[in-house]
Amino acid sequence: AIQKLEMSLEAIEKGGFEHFMLKEIYEQPKVIEDSFRGRMSATDGWIKLGGVSEFSTKIDKAERFIITACGTSYHSGLLAEYLIEELARVPVEVEYASEFRYRNPIINETDVVIAISQSGETADTLAAIEMAKERQALIYGICNVIGSSIARVSHAGSYTHAGPEIGVASTKAFSTQVSILTLLALQIAQSKGTISTSKLRQILYELEHIPEKIEETLQLDGQIRELAAIYKDATNFLYLGRGVNFPVALEGALKLKEISYIHAEGYPAAEMKHGPIALIDEEMPVVFLATNQSAYEKIVSNIQEVKARKGKIIAIVNKGDTQIRNLADHVIEVPETEEVLSPLVTVVPLQLLAYHIAILRGCNVDQPRNLAKSVTVE
Amino acid sequence: AIQKLEMSLEAIEKGGFEHFMLKEIYEQPKVIEDSFRGRMSATDGWIKLGGVSEFSTKIDKAERFIITACGTSYHSGLLAEYLIEELARVPVEVEYASEFRYRNPIINETDVVIAISQSGETADTLAAIEMAKERQALIYGICNVIGSSIARVSHAGSYTHAGPEIGVASTKAFSTQVSILTLLALQIAQSKGTISTSKLRQILYELEHIPEKIEETLQLDGQIRELAAIYKDATNFLYLGRGVNFPVALEGALKLKEISYIHAEGYPAAEMKHGPIALIDEEMPVVFLATNQSAYEKIVSNIQEVKARKGKIIAIVNKGDTQIRNLADHVIEVPETEEVLSPLVTVVPLQLLAYHIAILRGCNVDQPRNLAKSVTVE
Repeated sequence: AIQKLEMSLEAIEKGGFEHFMLKEIYEQPKVIEDSFRGRMSATDGWIKLGGVSEFSTKIDKAERFIITACGTSYHSGLLAEYLIEELARVPVEVEYASEFRYRNPIINETDVVIAISQSGETADTLAAIEMAKERQALIYGICNVIGSSIARVSHAGSYTHAGPEIGVASTKAFSTQVSILTLLALQIAQSKGTISTSKLRQILYELEHIPEKIEETLQLDGQIRELAAIYKDATNFLYLGRGVNFPVALEGALKLKEISYIHAEGYPAAEMKHGPIALIDEEMPVVFLATNQSAYEKIVSNIQEVKARKGKIIAIVNKGDTQIRNLADHVIEVPETEEVLSPLVTVVPLQLLAYHIAILRGCNVDQPRNLAKSVTVE
Repeated sequence: AIQKLEMSLEAIEKGGFEHFMLKEIYEQPKVIEDSFRGRMSATDGWIKLGGVSEFSTKIDKAERFIITACGTSYHSGLLAEYLIEELARVPVEVEYASEFRYRNPIINETDVVIAISQSGETADTLAAIEMAKERQALIYGICNVIGSSIARVSHAGSYTHAGPEIGVASTKAFSTQVSILTLLALQIAQSKGTISTSKLRQILYELEHIPEKIEETLQLDGQIRELAAIYKDATNFLYLGRGVNFPVALEGALKLKEISYIHAEGYPAAEMKHGPIALIDEEMPVVFLATNQSAYEKIVSNIQEVKARKGKIIAIVNKGDTQIRNLADHVIEVPETEEVLSPLVTVVPLQLLAYHIAILRGCNVDQPRNLAKSVTVE
């Protein structure tokens, strides 16, 4: 007799998770590993992104990188500015694709334009590429969808290998973009000699361990769900970070906006005093990205400022941190890593926080209102 | 007999206005005129900012301008990026001073660093200058307070001549910064030959008429007060703009945050579809800067998207606009001018809107909670 299969195709594809978004958050250790597999070796100290190697003469000589993207991909672009400037010592300009294409931007033959898009079909990003191509810049596309329009029109590029992303709010696409952009910065740095061999190996070694550190971070899911229950009725959130964790603050805020419809905003932590601090009272949850070794005392002082105004403090800290634990209302402890790699870890609790808050508010996390997975119109 | 003077010194200084902020908003026609008086002539087609003339060899050869600032001054810096790139065709990078100083930014001898600060004492901006000086960049300071620290440590610069600004939320300091930055962009453009004589004269002629156009805009005060009464209880606001009016959207949102404690956020209009549109429902007022001639149809289509999600639309439009009037819930009609100069006009209704909302909520507009006039600590 024929047995009827009771599970829907969708349920099978969700692999036991309640939503695609959650499944995709949990896939991050694996897809990040996929994103760097075969493209680097910590032991042997090499990186090889095919696209970079093929155009290395032009890329090594680039006087400027211009990164253009929208939404979550724009945030990975902002992060790449920190990575490329810090490691490869070349100026980087990051532009919203929609703004870039409608002005008359300065693009030279010696510029490399990096376009980032999960779908590879984002209309504004595609139009920005066309314009940059006319001006003879080299176009480097970073997409997830193989054979997509942006992949096809770019001169060179790298796929992120995140696999299909179904949830409208991007998660694993972001982290694999960041992984690729890190490799890109390191490969250029190695080629230009702006990084020592030992530092390069150290970062690559740490990168190899990122998947297990994300696995460890995912075990905080229960703690984060409890936190979500406390703050699910908040009407506003602030997310603050410094350095490489500033774009993570923007990304964490965007996740919450997208799926829970709570007005969340990201800011560089030190800018708070120039305005946003006026918003802070006992009703305002403030999420601090507080893992940066290089700016630790500065972040502590930003936390103290928020505490003095009675804001509720949720801090993402390195495991074993004691100083911030004494100040914050809640701490989420993540495994420590190289500072330039820390966004790959710190973004995970923010994804989970947005997910659980949205679920508790009864929102449709995989298909939030008003949003499309890829914005193929202007 | 001696008659006792019943007015306090503060009341005299407020010149009949209820608050310093309102007085300073109303001073804008005069101080903008002060900011360009003696520095340009539309009839004769010249611009002469002393600081630029003195260092013209280095400024004309600059390969990149790096603008660094905090808060409202950061917004005038973002606007200057549009002006300098569009008019003088030199790449511009704008950086939050607090972020800039704590990384290891790329600064070359051929770079010109423009530092903007009303008080001239902003700690993070001052520290950013010191770092840039060590790397041999030319420092151009734009300050309001004469003899301030930033004015003293800069190699060259221009005072904004806005007069003392007492209100904590900056208004006239912003518009005079923008006026100076416009002159700076035009002077470099003239010197480099990237602007035609006729276009230059046309912009200067329009600039001369900006004070009277602001006067005309100030007459909308009553209409804006009525609007404020309608939206005073909103918990959130979005401000959207494109091109030169994107920084104005950020600035309008910051004013509302600072003095009314409403969570307002600015965005480039086309980015809305990549996330923030999820926030929009019938409770959400959305302020559109819709005066850009170059992107008019695009803004109309952004307005339609918000309308389809039942957001409340307040649009700043050019006088005589009919298309947006049919879509928006409210229009504020301002006099038309050259697109590059339009921020000087469009920011005024946003300042007034923030002011009236704050007053109706019973807030202390001149001394908002948690904020200091100048942030002289990190």
